[in-house]
Amino acid sequence: MIQVSVIGSGNVAHHLVKAFSETSEVEIIQVLARNKGALSELLSPEQLISDWSLLKKVDVIIIAVTDEAIATVSNQIPFNNQLVVHTSGSVGLSTLNKNNRRGVFYPLQTFSKAKAVYYKTVPICLEAELAEDYQVLQNLAQSISQNIYTVNSEQRKALHTAAVFVSNFVNHLYQMGNEICLKNKLSFDILKPLIQETAQKILTLSPAEAQTGPAKRNDTETINKHLLFLTDENQKEIYKLLTKSIIDHEKKL
Amino acid sequence: MIQVSVIGSGNVAHHLVKAFSETSEVEIIQVLARNKGALSELLSPEQLISDWSLLKKVDVIIIAVTDEAIATVSNQIPFNNQLVVHTSGSVGLSTLNKNNRRGVFYPLQTFSKAKAVYYKTVPICLEAELAEDYQVLQNLAQSISQNIYTVNSEQRKALHTAAVFVSNFVNHLYQMGNEICLKNKLSFDILKPLIQETAQKILTLSPAEAQTGPAKRNDTETINKHLLFLTDENQKEIYKLLTKSIIDHEKKL
Repeated sequence: MIQVSVIGSGNVAHHLVKAFSETSEVEIIQVLARNKGALSELLSPEQLISDWSLLKKVDVIIIAVTDEAIATVSNQIPFNNQLVVHTSGSVGLSTLNKNNRRGVFYPLQTFSKAKAVYYKTVPICLEAELAEDYQVLQNLAQSISQNIYTVNSEQRKALHTAAVFVSNFVNHLYQMGNEICLKNKLSFDILKPLIQETAQKILTLSPAEAQTGPAKRNDTETINKHLLFLTDENQKEIYKLLTKSIIDHEKKL
Repeated sequence: MIQVSVIGSGNVAHHLVKAFSETSEVEIIQVLARNKGALSELLSPEQLISDWSLLKKVDVIIIAVTDEAIATVSNQIPFNNQLVVHTSGSVGLSTLNKNNRRGVFYPLQTFSKAKAVYYKTVPICLEAELAEDYQVLQNLAQSISQNIYTVNSEQRKALHTAAVFVSNFVNHLYQMGNEICLKNKLSFDILKPLIQETAQKILTLSPAEAQTGPAKRNDTETINKHLLFLTDENQKEIYKLLTKSIIDHEKKL
């Protein structure tokens, strides 16, 4: 049984605590949070604390707070030689206070409180200074997920940047699609099977192989029709830039 | 039994012929194609023709060719008062020759020859000049799909434009993610669960509710880290424009 405590109460902390509470291999000792909100459904009152002086030594303390708060929070941990990890994609391991043994436990997924996550498929990217600590983190990660990767701080930054492209930016394009539908009295539902198929295609084809559409064919007639059709300047600008990028990529193939 | 003939041999024609050949409600009379290639696996030699003079009258002739070729192909059909439809998202019904009864049968999906499509969920957008013809098209569409929509030519243009955002552009962002992974010796597989979850989230949340990431939080520190990390000018430009667009959207909420 791995003894774990979590600091934080945001989306990442919430889904992580939920996943740990569903496996018999992990014992959640404490969750330190200012905002106890939804976490109180998952934990007993004794597990949920807000006073640093009550924090106990455990196998792993997981800091799941905003990037800006990681350094401050890690400085507040009143221990030495305790394994402490953060969960951020864009913060280096070295941001954690040196008094403790350091590591990173980065679950690469998009977490919203309103949507449950099937944790078994969430890739968890691990980093640790000491081999023994890496082993503990690996055991911990394997208790909730099947996809474990060793990723150093520089690679993690790459991964986090890539994740912004394939998730945050992609979702924003869904939003543009939604806006165009609304404006033309069409249900966004019409686009949903296309969205699912586009995501599923890259499970069997590379993105380059999966590419379709007017930009790929350099079909200037259709591209110009779309640009004439769009009245929102922001949408037009995004359309132009991504179309140009696809055309340039096709030329290089 | 609805008698159908298809003109064309591209991705749309191929998947459509395959779907029709799997339902007992449709009889494929002929497929007229210059390039018989993969279609010969689905059809008998008598069904597969390349000579216009052999074309027979049927319930529906479906023109599934490139947008530019639709007018020419429709002019070559040697009949009057035959129901003729095209399958294009961006071409008006009026592009078809007036000698025949006209309609549109637009399956809204991304088709690649290398990837099978589960047609039952593909939205089919229908338009016809005559109510009786609409009924025929509706019966035909229902034989292969559960998602039928009435969409006029102007709305179809909106839908096609929206589809470019949520499919072609989205796939291109997957490609950027792939490039960033490759450059940093990371497997693109790490991003795949995130890609699937991002697509699935909008089945239960609106895109605005589903948005996460540094741009949504206006987290300039992380945004600047990512911009410093990116060395490809094209990726940088796309990152900046989409980040700005997300920030502007959040301000309006």
